[in-house]
Amino acid sequence: MLRAIQNFGSSSSGFVSQRLKPHGNCALSLVPISNKPSPLSPSHPRKPTANVSLIKGRCFRAFPVSCTGSESNPDVTSPSSPATFKSTGNIRKINFCQLCGGPTKHEIPDGEEKMRAICTLCGKIAYENPKMVVGCLIEHDNKILLCKRKIHPSYGLWTLPAGYMEIGESASEGAIRETWEEAGADVEVLSPFAQLDIPLIGQTYIIFLAKLKRLHFYPGPESSDCKLFSLDDIPFDSLAFSSMLVTLNLYVADRKVGSPKFHYGTINKRPGTSPSDIQAYTLDYHLKS
Amino acid sequence: MLRAIQNFGSSSSGFVSQRLKPHGNCALSLVPISNKPSPLSPSHPRKPTANVSLIKGRCFRAFPVSCTGSESNPDVTSPSSPATFKSTGNIRKINFCQLCGGPTKHEIPDGEEKMRAICTLCGKIAYENPKMVVGCLIEHDNKILLCKRKIHPSYGLWTLPAGYMEIGESASEGAIRETWEEAGADVEVLSPFAQLDIPLIGQTYIIFLAKLKRLHFYPGPESSDCKLFSLDDIPFDSLAFSSMLVTLNLYVADRKVGSPKFHYGTINKRPGTSPSDIQAYTLDYHLKS
Repeated sequence: MLRAIQNFGSSSSGFVSQRLKPHGNCALSLVPISNKPSPLSPSHPRKPTANVSLIKGRCFRAFPVSCTGSESNPDVTSPSSPATFKSTGNIRKINFCQLCGGPTKHEIPDGEEKMRAICTLCGKIAYENPKMVVGCLIEHDNKILLCKRKIHPSYGLWTLPAGYMEIGESASEGAIRETWEEAGADVEVLSPFAQLDIPLIGQTYIIFLAKLKRLHFYPGPESSDCKLFSLDDIPFDSLAFSSMLVTLNLYVADRKVGSPKFHYGTINKRPGTSPSDIQAYTLDYHLKS
Repeated sequence: MLRAIQNFGSSSSGFVSQRLKPHGNCALSLVPISNKPSPLSPSHPRKPTANVSLIKGRCFRAFPVSCTGSESNPDVTSPSSPATFKSTGNIRKINFCQLCGGPTKHEIPDGEEKMRAICTLCGKIAYENPKMVVGCLIEHDNKILLCKRKIHPSYGLWTLPAGYMEIGESASEGAIRETWEEAGADVEVLSPFAQLDIPLIGQTYIIFLAKLKRLHFYPGPESSDCKLFSLDDIPFDSLAFSSMLVTLNLYVADRKVGSPKFHYGTINKRPGTSPSDIQAYTLDYHLKS
């Protein structure tokens, strides 16, 4: 799906190549989430605070703050303070109602907590929700398949085949479809491998382990190359997105000690960093199953 | 989040109470996905076919067919044939461009395969993507916490606390928030438990195992009761949604043999069944990690 790839790429443009150090919590233990203020305490999330502190493997953040970053370009504005790290999406781009064509106003509806685009004629609220990006980590003969991007952003950098999940398909169907479109590879999904949320840009990556049904692949229209890499040769210094960097690091770490697990985590941009900073992102709330 | 709960409920209205029989593939073995036609064969997914056959634990379906079901009411039209089981979302409700207010046309854009709403003035394509519903399966003293719905649909039926994931939060943050809003419970997420896709209505459920930070909970504004149930007392005959039924069946099965695993699967409506049919849904592509 061309659209999915393009949008996926542009909305992740800030996630530059970097090699994450192994996280201390990548071992067997689970890292419980404790970032949310107690709902029974004065710092209930309905009462936003500006306090934010990042601890490796955990993240303590204020709840309903906002930033000007958008999905199409999450790094338009470098956050001036950690409190600007929550995205409210693209509601400023919602000027008219899809249903009746009436102009919208942007305010917090009664009984809600978030800014929404509300039609001034029919009252319809235009809700926005995070999108799922689905893809495959394809194993073959102790190697993995990567695609070299022939489109911007991240032109010339390597990625796993992935793109937006579509209405009417499951995540695994979407991952198979994207793999076919980007890598010309017919694959069978073996198991879920990772869910990585990126709250700043409203995306969640769902990555499956997969295998080739036959040893045949070729670059799709948005790839200039497709190649199998041994784990020691993965081009960690020229990966397209932080989500791929995190995924591949987790995979390599799992393979070193045994079979891959299922990983859940959140990719957060580090406060005060620019998109091109090395290790500008942290993997928080890392949980395994 | 009131909106999330209401929309979640209404968009799942077709998923009536039912007790699924244990699936044969709920054991240790993985069920590979083999439903997609080979992209290199004449039945490439870009060339849709109408052939559909359901096999327990696996699902063989045509690729880009469509139905008239919508997210807000997925069961408006009972599919007359299996080929109508793919949802194309709500594009027929997209009459105007959110950006410029121009009227839309509904057709397949150049280079794409799916029907889209395209602005006749500025050309913007209004993409729709599946939504994530996030929730918690809260364990306490060998019991689990359920909420009795005080709103329609599924008024008076039991559910895990869950609702739409919002822009700017991670899945685990959303699950914690929904649990607080629906059950007044302050919880800590322990591990990911299930991802269940429902392609027909464009939803994906992300369920986490969680524990109470303190033994305190109460019904939120959309619940009439919140209660801890032992595994033998789970009200399987009065659950609100098939997603909850599947989740709880998987959980009980896991607990009988040890610790919970992570489950991925797709909930599909059985061809020719009505929304109120017992066991009207199947869990397909069930994978474990």
